Amino acid sequence: MIYADNAATTKMSDAAINKMIEVAKETYGNPSSLYEFGQKAKEALELAREKVACLIGAEPREILFTSGGSEADNQAIRSAAKLGEKAGKKHIISTAFEHHAVLHTLEKLKSEGFEITLLDVHEDGLVRPEEVEQAIREDTCLVTVMFANNEIGTIQPIKQIGEICNRHQVLFHTDAVQAIGHVPVNVADQNIDMLSASAHKFHGPKGVGFLYAKKSIRLSNLIEGGAQERGRRAGTENVPGICAMAEALSEAVANIEKNRDHIEPIRNRIIEGLSEIPHSALNGSREPRLPGNINFCFEGIEGESLLLLLDDKGIAASSGSACTSGSLDPSHVLLAIGRVHDVAHGSLRLSLGEDITDEDADYIISAVKEVVEYLRSFSPVWRNLVAGKGKFIL
Amino acid sequence: MIYADNAATTKMSDAAINKMIEVAKETYGNPSSLYEFGQKAKEALELAREKVACLIGAEPREILFTSGGSEADNQAIRSAAKLGEKAGKKHIISTAFEHHAVLHTLEKLKSEGFEITLLDVHEDGLVRPEEVEQAIREDTCLVTVMFANNEIGTIQPIKQIGEICNRHQVLFHTDAVQAIGHVPVNVADQNIDMLSASAHKFHGPKGVGFLYAKKSIRLSNLIEGGAQERGRRAGTENVPGICAMAEALSEAVANIEKNRDHIEPIRNRIIEGLSEIPHSALNGSREPRLPGNINFCFEGIEGESLLLLLDDKGIAASSGSACTSGSLDPSHVLLAIGRVHDVAHGSLRLSLGEDITDEDADYIISAVKEVVEYLRSFSPVWRNLVAGKGKFIL
Repeated sequence: MIYADNAATTKMSDAAINKMIEVAKETYGNPSSLYEFGQKAKEALELAREKVACLIGAEPREILFTSGGSEADNQAIRSAAKLGEKAGKKHIISTAFEHHAVLHTLEKLKSEGFEITLLDVHEDGLVRPEEVEQAIREDTCLVTVMFANNEIGTIQPIKQIGEICNRHQVLFHTDAVQAIGHVPVNVADQNIDMLSASAHKFHGPKGVGFLYAKKSIRLSNLIEGGAQERGRRAGTENVPGICAMAEALSEAVANIEKNRDHIEPIRNRIIEGLSEIPHSALNGSREPRLPGNINFCFEGIEGESLLLLLDDKGIAASSGSACTSGSLDPSHVLLAIGRVHDVAHGSLRLSLGEDITDEDADYIISAVKEVVEYLRSFSPVWRNLVAGKGKFIL
Repeated sequence: MIYADNAATTKMSDAAINKMIEVAKETYGNPSSLYEFGQKAKEALELAREKVACLIGAEPREILFTSGGSEADNQAIRSAAKLGEKAGKKHIISTAFEHHAVLHTLEKLKSEGFEITLLDVHEDGLVRPEEVEQAIREDTCLVTVMFANNEIGTIQPIKQIGEICNRHQVLFHTDAVQAIGHVPVNVADQNIDMLSASAHKFHGPKGVGFLYAKKSIRLSNLIEGGAQERGRRAGTENVPGICAMAEALSEAVANIEKNRDHIEPIRNRIIEGLSEIPHSALNGSREPRLPGNINFCFEGIEGESLLLLLDDKGIAASSGSACTSGSLDPSHVLLAIGRVHDVAHGSLRLSLGEDITDEDADYIISAVKEVVEYLRSFSPVWRNLVAGKGKFIL
């Protein structure tokens, strides 16, 4: 199998899995316990916190461990909203192509009286910093813009947006789930106030993530109870998972350049190969883009059939976000960058891992070409287009 | 080390850890992905759900996987409160000795306009079903009573309380974090509408738990986002952790009687040994009580010193809940059963595991006797009591 769905989830690295096993077997005490065996778990936990903090340019006390990226997104946005409400500011700025963990939380806030502005992300899949600035009002309490999009991989001008938010004294959160471990992230340099991350996207374990929040920000709890995580996130800490996450992040960050230098040329080879398919188009600008992300639309076909046939050929790929698969609606991300419904339905996301080879690339290109041609051969939509009934869009 | 703090957390069983490794290595796909490799993860997830459901007498669709017991408690209570609010019912009944994941959520709800009745748990550490019934009002939307107390181990008359709630058509939730895998739990037999559980209390992994909710109950989300868990809990599922939890629960439930038959006599041996210490008392009734739980108060000493000296002697024990350790306040559980502040400070919880031996028991008894005597020898409180200044309470 060629696993080309690393944006959905990754395989744990050997170092991460070994760390998880080691801690689960040898340091299984409760970090809140006073005896030495508990305090050893506490030390392991705090060492992991220091590591994670250091890797993103934060202080250890600014890292809150969560059960994943969705929880971190929910808590960040809820916290900013609560702070905003107290100050009489109930306006939030975001974008139309955020992850649902952000969009659905914003919808909830809307139903609770907040006003939400969703910025356009343009055809290139990029947010314009000047449009963020124009949208900021007296009552804006939060700007939340994802670091890199989970479907089309475009990397947003985070540093500039952060600078604008700082200047206007508006909190700036970024969902960096797809970016962390794949491109350089530094919260201090990039003017980020809050950031969400998920371990299983960078070869760490599932069920673990973290929220960075600048120390001046008072977080609200999503989960009430014990005094863990400085009283901001109750529940016995998942020490083995957290230590494994720190291990995976260290590895990923140390290898960002090496991995990019390996993956990006192969990605470009695939992009060029797939571009030869008539009436196809890369979704979003090729740069700035995550090194392993490829997202195409093919006119006249249906993404789900494409995936299933590629699966038969031993290629694991996606039509978009795993979190919304099974839904019949086309991707909200592709609609946000201006793809019309019919075209958005025929999408393919390939997200490459570090183990991808040139041979894999050639195999992927030929497999996709073959499957697209096959699907088009009995697609009524395609036959109409070819017969001149209706116009090609791509 | 004699690890006698299994109520704080347990060591993962070999079967659970092996399952976690196996799934993390071989079934790491995202269960929401459509290709076969993703669907294998989905199958593993649903198999775990069936196992867990079957082990507690529920249907698979009634099990929602969470990041632990605290999250499950928060979601259960918040969901019941939301349903209650819609029906104009804003009164909740609970007890004074619940876990903080319950009590703090109830405090939040109080600040949002709910009325909370906390029932007395009496000196024996038991809630009276008739007092639950007397407290039920027209506007009661939820009764939440823990299955077994985390500090003193007393097992509540859950079935009778559930019957009363059913009869009055009030939702009944129980925090069964300490009970599941240690005593028989069957939601159908015991009239339970909602139940919270945490894997790391029954030799499963940390960071995983579940919420059982009867299928007629519409849960509200704590975490918004993707459509995982029937849309009620967003975030990529922690498949390795969930499968390991199911494995651990199968093992624990299969061995409930065997473990009880082994642990309970050793527990009783320790209770009898410690009862020989003058001016000491077991907290809560000896029966019905978790097989491995021992909780004593010793007059004239301070629990924290006791723990640290026992730690020096190779015994890992607790003064109460790990979730509140570090706090200077005496246990709210001991206060709830009527211990005065001074006495409640001198508490010791031993929670035995399956590997405990008679030799361990004898060592624990002699170590505790020695340490209590030593601490009393330079305790001004104790010296005053012995000198007849003030009265012994125990």
